[in-house]
Amino acid sequence: MLAYRWMTAVLLVAATPGNIRGAASFQATERNCSLSPPYLPSTAVNTSLRLQELREHMLSSNISAYIIPATDAHLSEYIAPRDARMAFMTGFTGSAGTAVVTPIKAALWTDSRYWVQAQRQMDCNWELQKDVSIRSISEWLISEVPHGGQIGFDPFLFSIKTQEEYSMSLELSNRSLKSMPGNLVDQVWKEERPSIPPDSLIRLPDRVIQRPWQMKVEQIRSQMKENPYEPTALLLSALDETAWLLNMRGNDIPYNPFFYSYTLLTLDEIWLFVHTHRLTEELRVYLNASCSGSLCVQLRSYDSVLDGLKKYVSQPGVKVWIGTEYTNYALYEVIKPEDKLMSSSYSPVLTTKAVKDDTEQRILRDAHVRDAVAVIQLLMWLEKAVPAGNETELSASHYVNHCRSKQKDNMGPSFETISASGPNAALAHYSPTEETNRKLTVDEMYLVDSGGQYLDGTTDITRTVHWGTPTAMQKEAFTRVLVGNIEISRTIFPSGTRGVNMEMLGRRALWEVGLNYGHGTGHGVGNYFGVHEWPVGFQGNNIPFREGMFTSIEPGYYKENNFGIRIEDVAVVVPAHTKYGHNYLTFDTVSLVPYDRKLIDTSLLSSVQVQWLNKHYETIRRLLGPELDRQGLHEESQWLLRHTEPFSEYGSSSSVCSSSLTLVTLAVAVIFNVV
Amino acid sequence: MLAYRWMTAVLLVAATPGNIRGAASFQATERNCSLSPPYLPSTAVNTSLRLQELREHMLSSNISAYIIPATDAHLSEYIAPRDARMAFMTGFTGSAGTAVVTPIKAALWTDSRYWVQAQRQMDCNWELQKDVSIRSISEWLISEVPHGGQIGFDPFLFSIKTQEEYSMSLELSNRSLKSMPGNLVDQVWKEERPSIPPDSLIRLPDRVIQRPWQMKVEQIRSQMKENPYEPTALLLSALDETAWLLNMRGNDIPYNPFFYSYTLLTLDEIWLFVHTHRLTEELRVYLNASCSGSLCVQLRSYDSVLDGLKKYVSQPGVKVWIGTEYTNYALYEVIKPEDKLMSSSYSPVLTTKAVKDDTEQRILRDAHVRDAVAVIQLLMWLEKAVPAGNETELSASHYVNHCRSKQKDNMGPSFETISASGPNAALAHYSPTEETNRKLTVDEMYLVDSGGQYLDGTTDITRTVHWGTPTAMQKEAFTRVLVGNIEISRTIFPSGTRGVNMEMLGRRALWEVGLNYGHGTGHGVGNYFGVHEWPVGFQGNNIPFREGMFTSIEPGYYKENNFGIRIEDVAVVVPAHTKYGHNYLTFDTVSLVPYDRKLIDTSLLSSVQVQWLNKHYETIRRLLGPELDRQGLHEESQWLLRHTEPFSEYGSSSSVCSSSLTLVTLAVAVIFNVV
Repeated sequence: MLAYRWMTAVLLVAATPGNIRGAASFQATERNCSLSPPYLPSTAVNTSLRLQELREHMLSSNISAYIIPATDAHLSEYIAPRDARMAFMTGFTGSAGTAVVTPIKAALWTDSRYWVQAQRQMDCNWELQKDVSIRSISEWLISEVPHGGQIGFDPFLFSIKTQEEYSMSLELSNRSLKSMPGNLVDQVWKEERPSIPPDSLIRLPDRVIQRPWQMKVEQIRSQMKENPYEPTALLLSALDETAWLLNMRGNDIPYNPFFYSYTLLTLDEIWLFVHTHRLTEELRVYLNASCSGSLCVQLRSYDSVLDGLKKYVSQPGVKVWIGTEYTNYALYEVIKPEDKLMSSSYSPVLTTKAVKDDTEQRILRDAHVRDAVAVIQLLMWLEKAVPAGNETELSASHYVNHCRSKQKDNMGPSFETISASGPNAALAHYSPTEETNRKLTVDEMYLVDSGGQYLDGTTDITRTVHWGTPTAMQKEAFTRVLVGNIEISRTIFPSGTRGVNMEMLGRRALWEVGLNYGHGTGHGVGNYFGVHEWPVGFQGNNIPFREGMFTSIEPGYYKENNFGIRIEDVAVVVPAHTKYGHNYLTFDTVSLVPYDRKLIDTSLLSSVQVQWLNKHYETIRRLLGPELDRQGLHEESQWLLRHTEPFSEYGSSSSVCSSSLTLVTLAVAVIFNVV
Repeated sequence: MLAYRWMTAVLLVAATPGNIRGAASFQATERNCSLSPPYLPSTAVNTSLRLQELREHMLSSNISAYIIPATDAHLSEYIAPRDARMAFMTGFTGSAGTAVVTPIKAALWTDSRYWVQAQRQMDCNWELQKDVSIRSISEWLISEVPHGGQIGFDPFLFSIKTQEEYSMSLELSNRSLKSMPGNLVDQVWKEERPSIPPDSLIRLPDRVIQRPWQMKVEQIRSQMKENPYEPTALLLSALDETAWLLNMRGNDIPYNPFFYSYTLLTLDEIWLFVHTHRLTEELRVYLNASCSGSLCVQLRSYDSVLDGLKKYVSQPGVKVWIGTEYTNYALYEVIKPEDKLMSSSYSPVLTTKAVKDDTEQRILRDAHVRDAVAVIQLLMWLEKAVPAGNETELSASHYVNHCRSKQKDNMGPSFETISASGPNAALAHYSPTEETNRKLTVDEMYLVDSGGQYLDGTTDITRTVHWGTPTAMQKEAFTRVLVGNIEISRTIFPSGTRGVNMEMLGRRALWEVGLNYGHGTGHGVGNYFGVHEWPVGFQGNNIPFREGMFTSIEPGYYKENNFGIRIEDVAVVVPAHTKYGHNYLTFDTVSLVPYDRKLIDTSLLSSVQVQWLNKHYETIRRLLGPELDRQGLHEESQWLLRHTEPFSEYGSSSSVCSSSLTLVTLAVAVIFNVV
């Protein structure tokens, strides 16, 4: 699934209202606050009352503005419904945005992907702001908040960097930031707010684990001991950190198997801050929760994390290691004085977790075999069903989810399926709704970006297909996207090379003809975690590639109002055997679904690219064929053989060669015959 | 000329004493402080007296340590002899290092390129430290300076970032940094210290200028006015900033046509801080120095810059824009309170200067035509002279300097020529000395990295040649380096792409077989400035590429104790015409010297690479042929034709094709004859 990084060009695409015309008439669906009385579509949420209540709380807190971010206390990329405070206040349910309320105004900042949606969902209490930089929000704050005014925020919802950026932007303005740990929105949002999920947490079965949690704890502790700054404790804030460390999962965030938690791991104790009632007796035994030794997990109430941390740092001689990217400002600001703090961008848990051990690699590859079965079932079914004319984006989405659900250890989709036909596929992060749902036809390209959660691994794959006759431009763009995918996949690089320094290989064939795409080129993927498993990937803040990391590779191309192409595979970083060097790496693609042959113009592929493709298809046949047979899917098995026929090196010079060599042979044969 | 960025692998190469065995015996050339009495080579400098004097000054300043960096007050990459304070104190003359003196100890930090040299030049007052990070220096300081002790530094010689890093590293240690504007080394270094060069400054002739300085001033002022932060002044600290703005040059730093200066450019005044006695009457007229209007340059004493700046910022309502990369800490710390400061990494002068106007592009291309003549003269001469057995690295270096000196508008070399044979070429930043000078033979590869200063442009080119029979490995490595050069040169990319995101194209063909190089891939070059014209280039802190920027492209490969390869050209960023897009760019190579044919294995080149090469050779013939003829260099003209013969697409599949097609034709002909 593509990571959010849309650049200007694509932002403009998504921003043009015209590009959803095909999906639904929008005339009456957006608010018009300049009319008198204002026009509000039925999708708009009346926020007057909640705003009034919030302002009362602001007044009694003596603040002139209140900032409401869209994230949660763990700075999660995806959040639980009960953390959707921005959505509650504004009515706007997009995944990215910041709301600010003053006594007389209310404004929402969101990026161009969501401008139309915001105009549909917000009432006229809210103004829409389009420059989402903190600098822009700060400028608005300076214009609305009087000199000397205080701007409140919940420090649990700010990263350290976010607080710093606001602080810097406001620094010279004589307005001050006020950290207010009790969230004001929560005081307004009472009745309808979803509660903490009552579900029990689970431990992973032994068969998907190489390292018991005790071993992981010891590994992390040795990294703490080896660190020259001599930290005495490690604070884990990101939800996947505790989940990884303890080999446990939950279900608190849709598509993300996490549970609300923090861990303070000291050299001789483990404090797990969690909703303790969610731990069964079995889990307490599993965690050794009844003791307080170095391998006993002491259970503490989730809400006591701030007090627990304060108490810890009040001791002499302690130093707490935090990963600054995922630690919220509330926790950060209690670690004082500064010599009690040690920081790195990512905690050692995240950097250790990024490199999969043998078992993790094996089972994640295996999850991709089963996942490929489901995707191939979808593609085969679409080939037959679409020409009949009854299928839609939504029905395809349901079909693939259903296919996945039948695979062993499936725990549901890993994100909301992007099932997009024609112009809808050119929209960033489009997922079909009843309103936008588009019929699938042989006249349009179709893009499906989907993934599954399995007990042993998370998958994520995008295929783009055409059931009729693609245009020359569609074939060219598709092939160039494929070349990008192949070029990254086959490249050899020294261990420790950063993805951001290689990702242009995914774009180069497109750049050659003046095409590009506006999102990132890939993100980490792992063993039953969130589908974007940072900090692995091709973005600027991602860590260097090492053997055993898994990443998606997903170049694309999007033609406004017309079509969208993305080809996404997951690959694992493996050693490359080179003529002269050591410590060189390359990628091994673990996604096992062939690409639409109809869209490949082999004359645009070099010999080496065709060879890569043919070798990959051999691998697909070798790994997937037996699985299809095992599952009794004989029609799929035949489909697979047809779609993984080796390509001849068509347009490349060497294929011209082989044909001329054939000619030579023929000619020589003729000569001999004649002679 | 390669930019300093040697990575670990190469550091280790250079660090091995063995690798200079070929050049000179080192047994007796390095100090041995563990002997009693210590052994000191004749090259060691006795620093006892100067250290004693420095310590007396430190005592009276009440500091427990004093930090002596290797840079100057303009944070120049290359410095004037009178700024070589670190060298004066330590005896060590390498270009990079930091010295620290305490009442009882003295230590030098320098990187592995210079460890041997430091052991030869330093006496036993000095310990050599090898981890050059500020963290490491700070740790040493913490171990040597008592609690509560003060560590002195000259704020003119610290960048803002350097000060911040020391400050952060020392923060928790209870040792404090003390900014001391009067340099303590200068109080010791009196008699022998070179004085300010007495030379007059020069203005560039009109024929090499499109924009008079008044126009540049107005251009920069409009950028100031358009800036939303509303700066009222711009402080120019880097020496090339004032030189560029006023179209003036000096001769204060070897190979760098700069003069000591700062400029404070306000919206209605221009203050030039300079050694005013160096300005002739003509220059004063040129600068409008007798008035104080918005296009009059007010001359102020160079040494009054701090006072001038203080006075300026003491006014209400002013805000000074600085580029943080080149502003020293002394100037930075007087701009207070903080709302008087506005900063960007680079000043608008540096970012504007990076994009050459039409005249600058034309004359810089032209300088490369004349420069190519000199390099071709060198290569042709070497081909004949080396087999005779009398030439050396030094004689070749002198020869190329001499050839350049005969070219129009030549102002000398742009850096000390790197002329390196065999194993010497594997050493980073090697330049021959009498001691290391190596004979040139047909048995070794030879690398020459040289450049010229011309009134119209600065050049920089590296060629690697072999006069005998190269090994297969040498040919392979050379060809893969060449592929790297070609792949960067021919790539098409969107305007605004950063060099650091493309530079792996220079390495990819090497990575494929497990080879690599440890330096940067290129740096900006311009119109008669320093040979490294930052911030253009392929490094992480370089600005994105735009049309009209010039950069070197210089991949390489170095085999320890054996040989070194680098292929360096200068290229200009030009528009690329693409099938679908706008605003795409590519490089146009302006260096016009062919590569050693003997070292090219065309079977490793793709068709498109051979085509690029042949097209480039056509350009060389077209641009250089007439110039050689004009200069009456007929032998060189013949040499050029021989060395720019088009390559057939040898090893590539399509050339196999053409031969088989020939066979077909033959066969068919035979058939017809027979029939």
